[in-house]
Amino acid sequence: MMQTPLTMTQMMERAEKYFPKKQVVSRTASGIQRFTYKQIAERTRRLADSLSKLGVTKGDRVGTLAWNHHRHLEAYFAIPCMGAVLHTVNIRLSPQHISYIINHAEDKVLLVDPDILPLLESCAAELKTVKAFIIMTDDKELPETILSPVYHYEKLLAEANPDYHYPEDLDENDPAGMCYTSATTGNPKGVVYSHRGIVLHSMALGLADSAAISEKDVALPVVPMFHANAWGMPFSAVWFGTSLVLPGPYFTPKLLAELIEQEKVTVTAGVPTIWLGLLKELDEGSYDLSSLRGVLCGGSAAPKGMIKAFEQRHNIPFMHAYGMTETSPLVVISTLKSYQEELDYEERLELRAKQGTLVPGLEIKILGKDGEVAWDGKEMGELCIKGPWIASEYYKDERTEEAFRDGWLHTGDVVTIDEEGFVKIVDRTKDLIKSGGEWISSVDLENALMAHDSVFEAAVVAVPHEQWQERPFACVVLKEAYKGKTTKEELLEFLTPQFAKWWIPDDILFLDEIPKTSVGKFLKMTLRDQVQKEALRKG
Amino acid sequence: MMQTPLTMTQMMERAEKYFPKKQVVSRTASGIQRFTYKQIAERTRRLADSLSKLGVTKGDRVGTLAWNHHRHLEAYFAIPCMGAVLHTVNIRLSPQHISYIINHAEDKVLLVDPDILPLLESCAAELKTVKAFIIMTDDKELPETILSPVYHYEKLLAEANPDYHYPEDLDENDPAGMCYTSATTGNPKGVVYSHRGIVLHSMALGLADSAAISEKDVALPVVPMFHANAWGMPFSAVWFGTSLVLPGPYFTPKLLAELIEQEKVTVTAGVPTIWLGLLKELDEGSYDLSSLRGVLCGGSAAPKGMIKAFEQRHNIPFMHAYGMTETSPLVVISTLKSYQEELDYEERLELRAKQGTLVPGLEIKILGKDGEVAWDGKEMGELCIKGPWIASEYYKDERTEEAFRDGWLHTGDVVTIDEEGFVKIVDRTKDLIKSGGEWISSVDLENALMAHDSVFEAAVVAVPHEQWQERPFACVVLKEAYKGKTTKEELLEFLTPQFAKWWIPDDILFLDEIPKTSVGKFLKMTLRDQVQKEALRKG
Repeated sequence: MMQTPLTMTQMMERAEKYFPKKQVVSRTASGIQRFTYKQIAERTRRLADSLSKLGVTKGDRVGTLAWNHHRHLEAYFAIPCMGAVLHTVNIRLSPQHISYIINHAEDKVLLVDPDILPLLESCAAELKTVKAFIIMTDDKELPETILSPVYHYEKLLAEANPDYHYPEDLDENDPAGMCYTSATTGNPKGVVYSHRGIVLHSMALGLADSAAISEKDVALPVVPMFHANAWGMPFSAVWFGTSLVLPGPYFTPKLLAELIEQEKVTVTAGVPTIWLGLLKELDEGSYDLSSLRGVLCGGSAAPKGMIKAFEQRHNIPFMHAYGMTETSPLVVISTLKSYQEELDYEERLELRAKQGTLVPGLEIKILGKDGEVAWDGKEMGELCIKGPWIASEYYKDERTEEAFRDGWLHTGDVVTIDEEGFVKIVDRTKDLIKSGGEWISSVDLENALMAHDSVFEAAVVAVPHEQWQERPFACVVLKEAYKGKTTKEELLEFLTPQFAKWWIPDDILFLDEIPKTSVGKFLKMTLRDQVQKEALRKG
Repeated sequence: MMQTPLTMTQMMERAEKYFPKKQVVSRTASGIQRFTYKQIAERTRRLADSLSKLGVTKGDRVGTLAWNHHRHLEAYFAIPCMGAVLHTVNIRLSPQHISYIINHAEDKVLLVDPDILPLLESCAAELKTVKAFIIMTDDKELPETILSPVYHYEKLLAEANPDYHYPEDLDENDPAGMCYTSATTGNPKGVVYSHRGIVLHSMALGLADSAAISEKDVALPVVPMFHANAWGMPFSAVWFGTSLVLPGPYFTPKLLAELIEQEKVTVTAGVPTIWLGLLKELDEGSYDLSSLRGVLCGGSAAPKGMIKAFEQRHNIPFMHAYGMTETSPLVVISTLKSYQEELDYEERLELRAKQGTLVPGLEIKILGKDGEVAWDGKEMGELCIKGPWIASEYYKDERTEEAFRDGWLHTGDVVTIDEEGFVKIVDRTKDLIKSGGEWISSVDLENALMAHDSVFEAAVVAVPHEQWQERPFACVVLKEAYKGKTTKEELLEFLTPQFAKWWIPDDILFLDEIPKTSVGKFLKMTLRDQVQKEALRKG
């Protein structure tokens, strides 16, 4: 067979040749803009030429601090296809962490959205390697800034060569992108994506049994493009000629609902927090979202009650999945098997509330106390993953050894796997509650609480306990209408029939909101501190 | 990213782990047999162990002379996964060519169906490298044979280790399979498939926009497993947990229709000749084939009239595709784009009667007289292909240079490509008719003739002509009911409004059948001789 490399250059080329008329709908500060793939492909070549003129060469890192919009999409392809490395900077990190990762990646050029400028300026003094800043503004003129030298994205493109040729000597194992993931303690850890990994992951997203991304789709990645490449959706969409809708900065649930309705979005992707917000909007407003064939949900476990509400109240099917920055991210997806389709709704829901079965191309094993766990849906173990779109290390980081051992990524996620191979995330190893030598899953308790009519969000954490080592403690945010009405006792009574007695939380704390990480996950460390203070106060 | 190789070992492993209950339905000489993937996976390991005990080691070629059935499927995986090379011998070749390819591939062991024994025996004296013959019989005892040493497939498996371990050190570029393709003149030419090529091709078959092979499918490859790996369908099916129906030896259109109905087949694959036969059966009989979501048709162009008949008379959708032994085989497939779905039926049919657009992962270019042709659906050129599942050479063959040049496979197929990137096969370079310096497509004329109610099959060939160099001459097989009734004049009149005057064939010859190659394609060389004699006879 020919040794043609699996590189990303073919993706935008295919969109331009076969789907020149298909559209990218981009929401920026100045409103909705529309581009064809023919235009995007040319602009992408112009960007590569501009970067090249600014001195970017093979292997150089180019950072982006940007929302989901067409210019970010152009950077997604221009940078890897010219042989450089796309570093999507997570703008929800703290300024210290942002300057750390830019310095650690040694970014040579940064592309930045105008509204993110103040954040970047607050780090500017710390940056050691950046030679140029490009501002991705809709305005004709550059905003005032202390950064220097600064360039105007559109002016650079206007002067660039539309016929720029991408190098043909890329190796499929060359780095194409990188993304840093927050660590429990210390600085974020860098993950490097190769061309080969991105190409194979994009194929996996197109499989009929996985997300089935197709030319017939209109795809709206809500998950930020600075978060695990928006789960790879922009890559697949461009390769397969799928229409893309990019929601830009500061969208609200209302705006999302309107975008989905107006653009007839068929598939979208994001974390449960986003979907909880959208659900509220749909329950209160009046929208026609019948174009949606699937809502891809990952990042953390989707509560069963939420999946059910979307499907039964709004006829919107969910696709539950699991992955992480280190895994490109798709690992398992909750596609039912043919014979499972015959089960009744509640049984199917039970399965689909699990994260699902392994995508073709990867291997998993689940390590419990005594080797691999039984496929019984009960025994818990740490999920370990292997495959061509799984990271093999953290970039120049001593913490590599903790996670990458014996050829496997040890995820730190505790899961069960049932007779049919459906993986269910039980917890993070560090979030499990160890009571009397047994494990209690905080996630199971959270999902059960969130299924109660009055509960908006719930998080369960461990509190140290003299006799039992640790005991579960719940933090609950009530829906507006229930505040001051629903009692602790009512919720505990609701849980009682669903769990073993020793699983029931010792107490419930009502909060106004649950502190979250930069990617919308519960910040359990902060919560644990808060809860422990409360527990101490009560004595 | 991890350097885990793309090898076939993961495919059967996934079927066994995630889809142990799913079925392989196998029709053999003694009737229908049913196996689960759990059983097939174990039998496959046993076969690998047996071959290993017979002395097969890494890189050795093992040949199969077999129909589509479960034992052939086991060989499909046991041989590559143990590091050896699966050589599927085309049993429709002549005995000389069969002994040539077995000797040329240096097959060490041959697996053979009982009914193919006489054919193999007729070559036996010529075979130079074969050390053992394994007979894939349902009977308890071996049939009488002059071959030696012979082994009984089931007895070998019964004695073998069910826990055989496949080697873990396979490289993704290691050879996994080989298949010989007939040449116009001379011996067949060998194509070697790598693990990487097969894995990537299998992914391509699973894409939502290509054949979308899924766990929810029941797949029936009618195309023989000795013909370009049954177009890769068995590989994808096993990997994705798809139920397989293998039709075994000597099936009739009636038997196919019954199998599809009884097993609720959703997707099937084969050449137009097969579908012409099935169409006749469906027109005459009474079957419920409503489970079928798609008939994958390739090997040669599907006449538009046939596609229409299937869809309009029987509500069975066609998936037209193109490929060749050298290309694994999938290259283009006639999936409509979203906005083309809005065209009316005749316009859609027109597009879908073309072979379609390029599958993600490959590159094509179409070389006319003056470089790449225009995308206008008119200019003709030779299709050239590049990509990770395209052969890079003919195995130990001097003819490599003719077809593989400058990193491209030059297919010898003449095509056009339209504004939307739909490729249409016009002819083989050698079958084009050159009249007065212009090209006439024999395929276009054939399709037009076959759209006439009275015509069962039609082939058009070139006859030498003093003034025009060559002129087209049609050979037609009439349907039974029209024999002796439909006239030459009637058919020529039917063609006249559809083509330029100089395209209309000079004459029509009515035949009882059209000579075909071992894979069901028109044998134009033979036909040309026949026609020239006829032309001479007439003076």
